[in-house]
Amino acid sequence: MHRPETTTSDNTPERAVLVVMHRGASEADLTAVESLARRRARQVETSCVAGCAILTLRGAACTVDPALFACQRGVARAFGLDASFPKASTERGQGTVPLEVGALRFGGEAVQVIAGPCAVRDEEQLEQTAARLASLGVRVMRAGAFKPRTSPYSYQGAGLEGLRLLRSCADRHRLLVLSEVMDPALVSEVAACADIVQLGARSMYNYPLLREVGRCGKPVLIKRGMSATYDELLGAAEYVLLEGNDRVMLCERGIRTFSAGARATLDVAAVPLLKSRARLPVLVDPSHAAGCRSLVEPLACAAIAAGADAIVIEVEQTPDDALSDASQTLDFAQLEALLARVARVASAVGRELALGADRG
Amino acid sequence: MHRPETTTSDNTPERAVLVVMHRGASEADLTAVESLARRRARQVETSCVAGCAILTLRGAACTVDPALFACQRGVARAFGLDASFPKASTERGQGTVPLEVGALRFGGEAVQVIAGPCAVRDEEQLEQTAARLASLGVRVMRAGAFKPRTSPYSYQGAGLEGLRLLRSCADRHRLLVLSEVMDPALVSEVAACADIVQLGARSMYNYPLLREVGRCGKPVLIKRGMSATYDELLGAAEYVLLEGNDRVMLCERGIRTFSAGARATLDVAAVPLLKSRARLPVLVDPSHAAGCRSLVEPLACAAIAAGADAIVIEVEQTPDDALSDASQTLDFAQLEALLARVARVASAVGRELALGADRG
Amino acid sequence: MHRPETTTSDNTPERAVLVVMHRGASEADLTAVESLARRRARQVETSCVAGCAILTLRGAACTVDPALFACQRGVARAFGLDASFPKASTERGQGTVPLEVGALRFGGEAVQVIAGPCAVRDEEQLEQTAARLASLGVRVMRAGAFKPRTSPYSYQGAGLEGLRLLRSCADRHRLLVLSEVMDPALVSEVAACADIVQLGARSMYNYPLLREVGRCGKPVLIKRGMSATYDELLGAAEYVLLEGNDRVMLCERGIRTFSAGARATLDVAAVPLLKSRARLPVLVDPSHAAGCRSLVEPLACAAIAAGADAIVIEVEQTPDDALSDASQTLDFAQLEALLARVARVASAVGRELALGADRG
Amino acid sequence: MHRPETTTSDNTPERAVLVVMHRGASEADLTAVESLARRRARQVETSCVAGCAILTLRGAACTVDPALFACQRGVARAFGLDASFPKASTERGQGTVPLEVGALRFGGEAVQVIAGPCAVRDEEQLEQTAARLASLGVRVMRAGAFKPRTSPYSYQGAGLEGLRLLRSCADRHRLLVLSEVMDPALVSEVAACADIVQLGARSMYNYPLLREVGRCGKPVLIKRGMSATYDELLGAAEYVLLEGNDRVMLCERGIRTFSAGARATLDVAAVPLLKSRARLPVLVDPSHAAGCRSLVEPLACAAIAAGADAIVIEVEQTPDDALSDASQTLDFAQLEALLARVARVASAVGRELALGADRG
Repeated sequence: MHRPETTTSDNTPERAVLVVMHRGASEADLTAVESLARRRARQVETSCVAGCAILTLRGAACTVDPALFACQRGVARAFGLDASFPKASTERGQGTVPLEVGALRFGGEAVQVIAGPCAVRDEEQLEQTAARLASLGVRVMRAGAFKPRTSPYSYQGAGLEGLRLLRSCADRHRLLVLSEVMDPALVSEVAACADIVQLGARSMYNYPLLREVGRCGKPVLIKRGMSATYDELLGAAEYVLLEGNDRVMLCERGIRTFSAGARATLDVAAVPLLKSRARLPVLVDPSHAAGCRSLVEPLACAAIAAGADAIVIEVEQTPDDALSDASQTLDFAQLEALLARVARVASAVGRELALGADRG
Repeated sequence: MHRPETTTSDNTPERAVLVVMHRGASEADLTAVESLARRRARQVETSCVAGCAILTLRGAACTVDPALFACQRGVARAFGLDASFPKASTERGQGTVPLEVGALRFGGEAVQVIAGPCAVRDEEQLEQTAARLASLGVRVMRAGAFKPRTSPYSYQGAGLEGLRLLRSCADRHRLLVLSEVMDPALVSEVAACADIVQLGARSMYNYPLLREVGRCGKPVLIKRGMSATYDELLGAAEYVLLEGNDRVMLCERGIRTFSAGARATLDVAAVPLLKSRARLPVLVDPSHAAGCRSLVEPLACAAIAAGADAIVIEVEQTPDDALSDASQTLDFAQLEALLARVARVASAVGRELALGADRG
Repeated sequence: MHRPETTTSDNTPERAVLVVMHRGASEADLTAVESLARRRARQVETSCVAGCAILTLRGAACTVDPALFACQRGVARAFGLDASFPKASTERGQGTVPLEVGALRFGGEAVQVIAGPCAVRDEEQLEQTAARLASLGVRVMRAGAFKPRTSPYSYQGAGLEGLRLLRSCADRHRLLVLSEVMDPALVSEVAACADIVQLGARSMYNYPLLREVGRCGKPVLIKRGMSATYDELLGAAEYVLLEGNDRVMLCERGIRTFSAGARATLDVAAVPLLKSRARLPVLVDPSHAAGCRSLVEPLACAAIAAGADAIVIEVEQTPDDALSDASQTLDFAQLEALLARVARVASAVGRELALGADRG
Repeated sequence: MHRPETTTSDNTPERAVLVVMHRGASEADLTAVESLARRRARQVETSCVAGCAILTLRGAACTVDPALFACQRGVARAFGLDASFPKASTERGQGTVPLEVGALRFGGEAVQVIAGPCAVRDEEQLEQTAARLASLGVRVMRAGAFKPRTSPYSYQGAGLEGLRLLRSCADRHRLLVLSEVMDPALVSEVAACADIVQLGARSMYNYPLLREVGRCGKPVLIKRGMSATYDELLGAAEYVLLEGNDRVMLCERGIRTFSAGARATLDVAAVPLLKSRARLPVLVDPSHAAGCRSLVEPLACAAIAAGADAIVIEVEQTPDDALSDASQTLDFAQLEALLARVARVASAVGRELALGADRG
């Protein structure tokens, strides 16, 4: 059960920060920065390189904040020397560390497929979907029972009852289940029904929720927030990892930019960039980036070509009846065509699309 | 106490949507759209204007989704005809409806000031701050006891105990209290200590939290998410209003853009634009947009000049010791100068800065 | 020779605009909009659909501006009914119309490759590059002789003399030449040396230049501006097409967003979206989007997977000596590996990488 | 007359760059970076601070490019130590250096007003406008004779003839003239008619044009490009300054972001930020940022409150007849109200709105 943290204990690893003064900085500027540094750091040293004073600060991560020093008079740059997120970081460039969800491996050579409706509607929908997914060899079914919607008048999801329906339909077809949780108080109940617990883009900054899923024992998929930096996404992962949950996956789903046409701008470079910084599998959700059906396939292909470890696709029998995201939901014929094309692209970049043995 | 919603009931007001076909759309395109429309709407009519077929759909808000129609073949535009957020909307252009917090009025002629440290640290800090704020005539003190931080290694806040300290220091100086809540399970406890409950930018999309503060009985300040559209911000307000909490205020705090220099790009146009769309007071937090001390005053002045109903300023006795946002926190001399200037700008645009009688 | 237009004649096709009033709009609002409409349009009709007044305006494109109507009181929406850019638009959805540059075909089944140094440095560099490109089967060589640089202290290019060197080296190896022009007064000289004249991202809004290249007789590659909308890019193409130059190609090269890591955010969705709107081939320049070498290959693969008609890659013998964009310039071993991978991706999506017979 | 530069000579001041290696960087990484550094810099030194190797490079600005070093393996940061734009930079924090245009002073205590129609239409329009501006005390009239338009079917401007009309109407009412130039070949002709030559947002990256206006002898107003960074704007100014033209002014006019509502997001923080970095007056054009009439006044007030040295406002007798930007063009009653309010805001921040003696 979720017990909210009413007092917050802090992790305080030691950090080193470098503060580079402008060459033209005055003595007074330097003295002021040194004095501030001594106030906040355990240890401060000043060197001189190329006519610039350079301060090295060592102290608790929560007090030696580069941003504070960067805006002092006379300071040219201030930055940390340590990995900001040591648990998420790739150590010594070893690359992605694969992780297991049931019999599946994410982040290895195989490219995984997660598919299903945006939102749970009813049993008929879930049963049809599960059957078709299984026959196409897809092994993870997604569906949301709790939907974060801009408007309170939009469909809000089928709730826990819907989630249990999802579980039983998936079980009948030996599928794993991915589903989203929004409320820390419901994490244990969602985790009981899902094999992968998803934090949606709108929840990426929800730190009580991140801590709670960090304690739930199930793999966690964190979607990048609509305007989240890579640092913020890795920070979100670090919250989960710090609670002892080692199975975290990241998901690029498009960012918010000036550019219209698609619903969000899929940042394909996020795939190689996140993989170079973190040891976590990186997935891509082309459906939410697309916002319309015709864009899902080219974006899915681009994602795989750029190195994504899995794709997440919205699909259902009659997309026109979908209660949310109908505009971007494929039907099964479209999914089948997409998977065929994506499989060829995966081979082209030296990987293999992991479609299961049930494949009809 | 927070009881998470395990099944979600939907509000389903009736909505009207207009779908305008391209002039060159084929018969088949039109037939397909009409068929889709009949599937999702209670009533569908087709007219012809200027050679374009125009469909009018009426039905439940959660099924007649303009986005679904906008991406059908042959469709030029699809859009709703009703106010998306009837409770937040200004009816018949009546403008901002002022609301009361204790003896203060937000959204009226007076411009309010909320100030205080980013984060609660200890009693000395709070006591000093409260005393100085009171002597400057400020009547609402802000301070965060639960801090949403990008890194789990940053200071996370003083928790409920800190909040209670804040309450007692504020009481000693007859100040109102604004403080942030992040976890739905803590809303009642935060609401017991605060006069205004804040949802931070990172919580704007946190719908379980929005519903919960909608039931807490205290005025709510909703900060605009870092890349939230006006619709999304108004949608967040609508969640709170729908639960019966009528005292909602909006707060612009800078948006995320390509532009560096400030920490976020203060969108001053948000003030008149939000006021033209919603009846809710619109505040501005120049401190978070600035990210550094020297920008706080010009941004505060700009906000008031553009019509903001209040400003939220981070200040403490020794900003260099602040445990978060030290780079943008003013000291009291800077706050005093800022208030003097802001007061003149408020007068220039026909309003008055509301500084209290205690003013020393 | 460039004769600047000292008086500007306007093209004034007839346009139709639809103005949809709010359902709650007053009589006075409607009357005011109708009066404005009659002032600017040749013909105005008012209909009523679903309780909304809808005005249809017909008149000269330069006077019936939807934006003007959209901001009148009582107006819900205003939009044009005609293709904004008839010459660039795909007519009746026929898709990309291939065009010929020498013996090469852009926009057909074959995927073309354009490669070469960012900037011309000297003959040795060009000769080495041309020889290696030819041996890899690349048939179009790029190199800039006029470089638009943020700082006047950065390398500005080798000028016309450099361009002539480029031409003669390319000729020796039977390569086509792509090079950029920045000044309308130099278009004829650049067009005399280049097979494809490039307008860089910084010149996309340079209308005198667009008109001038529209008269130069050579194919034109227009790069998308750093924050250009699709409409603006298509508008730029329309300027060239209107002057009678039918061989226009578009190039996505990354857009400016909040997201750091890569130099620009490659908008892969631009490929299918532009192709669905215009009949023009769509190329992708992954090098400029990447800004660093390790990202060029994954972005190139993503571009091809999303349907790009060609890729533009920066390469030279010793990238570390490059006078501009050294950080993203590949060496030939990297190019060779990239081409092998890209060729497999092209096959995966049903196309073929067009590498020439010289291929060693 | 414009003689295009067919070979480009480079300015090559000496620059210093600091390259900070990661603490965990290998010997091989360091050796590779040192070798690259020696290849490109005149002098290279390696120091060690806090366990990090730090290289200091000195060499020609065009070869010691921080971006190249920043993306080498093992490098944590690379950045220049010198002012990037020495001519534009404020030396030793002396602040804005006022400059004279006729009898007016920009960047001093007085806040200037520039107003007039977006585009020249005909003599009647100009004469009416000039008379009304003079009677309101405005002393600089703006109007475009060459209009950069997204669509070739939009009004393109009245050309040189229109510009001459503008000059003579302005002269009759003793007004100064600001007008835009787009083509380097027309700079001398525009400069002959205008007192301030404007480079529009779409021309900010037009380096041949910047050089040419740098030689025209008239003050130059450079508008910030739609997604230009401060560095890029200052770089544009540096091009003009380097040609010997010392009278350069910068103009914020809104940037392109995800946020709709206004046409562009006015970045008010640009005013204090640019002023802290450059000695040049900073103006604001609220009209283009607004895109609609009702936003112009609040944005103008915000600009002045944030410290702008002048505002540029679009106004004409019958805005509904304007041939471009009609949606944001004020009428004279609106301008008069705006000026009254803006004058009070200017006083509030310790300045004075400079309205002339003619003021009726």
